Amino acid sequence: MLGPLLGADRVAATLDARAWLDALLDVEVALTHAAAQQGLVDDAAQVERAAQELRAGLDPAILAAEAVEGGNPVIPLARRLRAAAGPAGAAVHPGATSQDVMDTALVLLVRAAATVIDDDLGGAADGAARLAGEHRDTPMAARTLGQQALPTTFGLVAAGWCAGLDRARLALVDVVGALPVQFGGAAGTLAASYPHGPAMADALADLLGLPRADVPWHTERSRLGELAGALGVAAGACAKPATDVVLLSATEVGEVSESAPGGSSSMPHKRNPVAAVTARASAGRAPGLVATLLAAAGHEHQRAAGPWHTEWPALMDLLCATGGAAARLRICLEGLRVHPEAMARNLSLTSGGGTPHHAGELVDRTLGGRERQ
Amino acid sequence: MLGPLLGADRVAATLDARAWLDALLDVEVALTHAAAQQGLVDDAAQVERAAQELRAGLDPAILAAEAVEGGNPVIPLARRLRAAAGPAGAAVHPGATSQDVMDTALVLLVRAAATVIDDDLGGAADGAARLAGEHRDTPMAARTLGQQALPTTFGLVAAGWCAGLDRARLALVDVVGALPVQFGGAAGTLAASYPHGPAMADALADLLGLPRADVPWHTERSRLGELAGALGVAAGACAKPATDVVLLSATEVGEVSESAPGGSSSMPHKRNPVAAVTARASAGRAPGLVATLLAAAGHEHQRAAGPWHTEWPALMDLLCATGGAAARLRICLEGLRVHPEAMARNLSLTSGGGTPHHAGELVDRTLGGRERQ
Amino acid sequence: MLGPLLGADRVAATLDARAWLDALLDVEVALTHAAAQQGLVDDAAQVERAAQELRAGLDPAILAAEAVEGGNPVIPLARRLRAAAGPAGAAVHPGATSQDVMDTALVLLVRAAATVIDDDLGGAADGAARLAGEHRDTPMAARTLGQQALPTTFGLVAAGWCAGLDRARLALVDVVGALPVQFGGAAGTLAASYPHGPAMADALADLLGLPRADVPWHTERSRLGELAGALGVAAGACAKPATDVVLLSATEVGEVSESAPGGSSSMPHKRNPVAAVTARASAGRAPGLVATLLAAAGHEHQRAAGPWHTEWPALMDLLCATGGAAARLRICLEGLRVHPEAMARNLSLTSGGGTPHHAGELVDRTLGGRERQ
Amino acid sequence: MLGPLLGADRVAATLDARAWLDALLDVEVALTHAAAQQGLVDDAAQVERAAQELRAGLDPAILAAEAVEGGNPVIPLARRLRAAAGPAGAAVHPGATSQDVMDTALVLLVRAAATVIDDDLGGAADGAARLAGEHRDTPMAARTLGQQALPTTFGLVAAGWCAGLDRARLALVDVVGALPVQFGGAAGTLAASYPHGPAMADALADLLGLPRADVPWHTERSRLGELAGALGVAAGACAKPATDVVLLSATEVGEVSESAPGGSSSMPHKRNPVAAVTARASAGRAPGLVATLLAAAGHEHQRAAGPWHTEWPALMDLLCATGGAAARLRICLEGLRVHPEAMARNLSLTSGGGTPHHAGELVDRTLGGRERQ
Repeated sequence: MLGPLLGADRVAATLDARAWLDALLDVEVALTHAAAQQGLVDDAAQVERAAQELRAGLDPAILAAEAVEGGNPVIPLARRLRAAAGPAGAAVHPGATSQDVMDTALVLLVRAAATVIDDDLGGAADGAARLAGEHRDTPMAARTLGQQALPTTFGLVAAGWCAGLDRARLALVDVVGALPVQFGGAAGTLAASYPHGPAMADALADLLGLPRADVPWHTERSRLGELAGALGVAAGACAKPATDVVLLSATEVGEVSESAPGGSSSMPHKRNPVAAVTARASAGRAPGLVATLLAAAGHEHQRAAGPWHTEWPALMDLLCATGGAAARLRICLEGLRVHPEAMARNLSLTSGGGTPHHAGELVDRTLGGRERQ
Repeated sequence: MLGPLLGADRVAATLDARAWLDALLDVEVALTHAAAQQGLVDDAAQVERAAQELRAGLDPAILAAEAVEGGNPVIPLARRLRAAAGPAGAAVHPGATSQDVMDTALVLLVRAAATVIDDDLGGAADGAARLAGEHRDTPMAARTLGQQALPTTFGLVAAGWCAGLDRARLALVDVVGALPVQFGGAAGTLAASYPHGPAMADALADLLGLPRADVPWHTERSRLGELAGALGVAAGACAKPATDVVLLSATEVGEVSESAPGGSSSMPHKRNPVAAVTARASAGRAPGLVATLLAAAGHEHQRAAGPWHTEWPALMDLLCATGGAAARLRICLEGLRVHPEAMARNLSLTSGGGTPHHAGELVDRTLGGRERQ
Repeated sequence: MLGPLLGADRVAATLDARAWLDALLDVEVALTHAAAQQGLVDDAAQVERAAQELRAGLDPAILAAEAVEGGNPVIPLARRLRAAAGPAGAAVHPGATSQDVMDTALVLLVRAAATVIDDDLGGAADGAARLAGEHRDTPMAARTLGQQALPTTFGLVAAGWCAGLDRARLALVDVVGALPVQFGGAAGTLAASYPHGPAMADALADLLGLPRADVPWHTERSRLGELAGALGVAAGACAKPATDVVLLSATEVGEVSESAPGGSSSMPHKRNPVAAVTARASAGRAPGLVATLLAAAGHEHQRAAGPWHTEWPALMDLLCATGGAAARLRICLEGLRVHPEAMARNLSLTSGGGTPHHAGELVDRTLGGRERQ
Repeated sequence: MLGPLLGADRVAATLDARAWLDALLDVEVALTHAAAQQGLVDDAAQVERAAQELRAGLDPAILAAEAVEGGNPVIPLARRLRAAAGPAGAAVHPGATSQDVMDTALVLLVRAAATVIDDDLGGAADGAARLAGEHRDTPMAARTLGQQALPTTFGLVAAGWCAGLDRARLALVDVVGALPVQFGGAAGTLAASYPHGPAMADALADLLGLPRADVPWHTERSRLGELAGALGVAAGACAKPATDVVLLSATEVGEVSESAPGGSSSMPHKRNPVAAVTARASAGRAPGLVATLLAAAGHEHQRAAGPWHTEWPALMDLLCATGGAAARLRICLEGLRVHPEAMARNLSLTSGGGTPHHAGELVDRTLGGRERQ
């Protein structure tokens, strides 16, 4: 009921049961092709046909139910794939362990979700940049600890929003782009594909368009911690402008307003900054989820007995939270209306006004920096 | 894809879009009846029929989409209900604000979810109690910091599991049972139902079978913090036995095994304690979600501009996490197989064995205490 | 450097190294007396004298350094106490394990810290109640999502603050008061004090003025989770009024001001609501710390290999965070200045004003409820 | 009492009240010199002498007490520095706001703390690398979900520890090294140092050996979020090997033991892996603290009314937590004793043994990769 209003629906669609099933099958098919490239199996085409059959005919909810017994959906999926492949069944899941498929599929899903998030972070940043440019020299009160301090410009405020969003976005792109393939086999030693283990791993990466991994990372989860951190920072970069918009929209301040504020049938004067409110709300989910993922870092032995499974819902929720914040903030900033006359009126409460020195220069630096990216 | 294997599906079903729609309509209908009891509106039956129509014909996904504009689904729902009620439209949503309906519906949903969680916590506790009774005098090694210390009994270990589960369960029942109705109107003053405000609030509570509220709690959210805390403690009470089962199931220890352990086609000796593993995994989601809810406590003014909306997904996720942990632990403990001979063999590594004094008495105290509840 | 400004210094003083040393010795002395009552040891007076010697002469920093080797300070303390007791050394630490002493000392420390926290929560609640009474009928704008909605009264706003603080305070007192003695011996079986184990445990509780424990709770940590939750809720109950004070103090709103706001040499118009700001800041530390404590709930076996030790700093930090929030909020509310004319002026922006119906009645309910406690 | 045993004392010493006072004075002196370079003030030498006087004579506890009124220690420090500088008082704190000094001092403190953390992370990684090299071909059981799976080598296990630590260490060095100077003046516009604002900011950075900042980042806190994330990942990289050591040290497994395990007077067979236990414990503090810092990202306006102050204790606690984990893990790994015969014995429970194919190659890759750094 609440996904759309928190902005999470577009990201959520990249992570639903259907998306999982597709990603798992993508990895299984790529595994078979990689093994075929090494001469380990024949009949890759037959496995690919079997996968296509499952894509069309297997209800993800059934697979989800079957996943309970062994603790992950790869076990029943490989079984079904073998059955569907008939005589080519031996070419299914070559040299792999369930976690190879789960982790690699998770990377594929993260990339898809991150593309959406990046798009919305970029849209929000562009919105902020436009505001910064248009109001490069619009004076307003800087406020510290809630109190008016000295003058600043709305352009500089919006440039700060833009800087945070751009910074977070670049970091997220880097972290996501570096997530590599997973391939190690049951013990993480590549033993089951000897002597082609490393070649298999690289071929799998290449087929899926993922970075190669020097060594398996079944229980070395710092990459996921880095991803969590980057998503948490991005959520914070959304929370900052959303908070400012809420405060600047207050009835007594009135310096900005959303283009489509929420109304109230009984209170016609209400102009609720709903996009900013829900951006803040969505961003507020992120820090706890980051903590969940970081707390799961201590994977035991060669496959964790709990922390690994915790990562799945926590990471998907975190992607939705950050994506929701970005999506709602984008709506907020793309249409934000600025009221320079209110800024001037408020500023006159404590200060003579006038555009502060250096402010325009700082705006130019920020906007210039982003053009050079 | 992952709900069932993490045990969350039964709780999740109490919180889905359909459940939200039903709960929201239950509150709207009760509002109208309460107002009718005070003589404020007529035509309650007509509103009830309109609600019935929406229940049957309104796709919750459509309402979810309509909720984006105003930031909550009550605004479009009340509009639709008024339209459906025709001439009785004035009897819809009397004296209420959106948060009255959202909060009260949330309480109804929490009660439904908590009933499921309580059932599974109880099943898990019963399983632990049975193990404690059956193995009241079965010697095993107590282990401190991972090292064998002195003998204890498996009965005492399982009694400790039971005690934690029972304690958490009772606390959760108390907190959930105390969650009251919400009714305050747009400013939390009951002004729109003057002079019947308090009577309306009480009538609404009575009609829905909820505790009355002395005063509206739109931005006094300690009850939700208490609920979060109780759910977090319950998740921890599940994590403890699940962790022990994982450790006691280790190949080299072998003192317990699950009745339906997860297998592996390539490794026939594997007996993965999948239920315990997924109970731990689900419980691992809870602490971060509790933090999210507590961090949202500082609701601004008379309706929060972000923290209120954060509560919804965080609380639903937390209910699923704790419920999932309980459900999976129940499966684990109800069928747990105990291997006294392995306990004796391990114990002989460091100790002469023999049932430790007082241990049985402590088991009896624990089991006796739960019978008196 | 930052303890005092975040309000944490008074609580921190109850938890410093000296306080730990005293509490550990209090428990050791009580252990010996309890054993003497059961006829298990002689020479309790000699042990008490040895403890007195250590209190006077042992630098806590030295004990802290000695604690590294075994992982807790009880091991070196018991060794030193035995040495100091000379021939009565056998009467030291009877039947106990390190965790018995650490946990019981922790309970003593929590009680001391909670007394301070309760005092400040009470002071803050009294401040809110005074404001509620004095401004029972002072109209102001209710604000929802940052926008003016309809009129409320400042009395009703302050009554809500008071209700949250009172509620949190009562819950904290309950949880702290229920924390029991810990006594179980090395394996949690009371074996080392057979046949006097339960009697020893009860005597220890009675001597220290603590509730008795039915069974040892070495790895059943739900009580600490409940304590964490209660502290987190109390921090949230402080964050709410602190946030409102910050917002209502904004230059453009100006409805309240602190009695001793922070100034600025370069900006004479600044009246920073520093007490509210630092109350918010201190409260902001709490949710993450609650998560840390809840995540540590899965204590392994009969003594946890990590989670137990995590509890110590996390719980002390959490006590300081909640205590700091309460202390700073008390300063804020005890001296808060209210500006009814600003409230009226702001209200005139959207509304005709007038005291809203029912508001005074709701204030009376809240204040009446607290008098009955 | 508990700092040393959790390994936090060395980092804590870089962050104590004395260290804060020194860092604040370092920034104030550099500010004056930077202004002198621009020809804005004279008498820098006199300010430097005044700072030297305060370093020698001012009790940090007194400054901490004075910091309460205005909410930060810079206000009273600048006042004292002006007084001590006599006629040169006008050269104190030129163009700066309190947050400029606090943030820049915080960066200096973080660099000092991170140097210690990096040293211990490096020591731990070196210890793991040594183990990986020495046991490149030592067979042991890989364990998945707590169950023996197929053979791996201890060398590969230790190489995984090393990889995680190296990765976290490099990321932390990058993030810390990029933390820039803060200089923006009261409104973040550099107005008070016009027309030398940007030059002043750069000179300040250069004098302190810090990166320059394009624009002030008073309320654009993504850098601190990135730092928090990197510290959280590093703590997780410590938790992983510490957890494995605890599990491999279990009495029934016995494959490794610490060189100086904790003992027990009453249980001579105990060999507690105390260093690993306390490394886990310290790492367990980190995720919640990361969440605290990320939740504080939404700084309001041009100086946050709460979130800014929250950062100080949270970041210092997080540095201590990660540093403590690294310090304790280093002790654990530098002296870790490996028992190949126990590995062989355990492996024989399920598997024929033999060194797994590819494992040595994967070790070489990991160790080769670190040599190239």
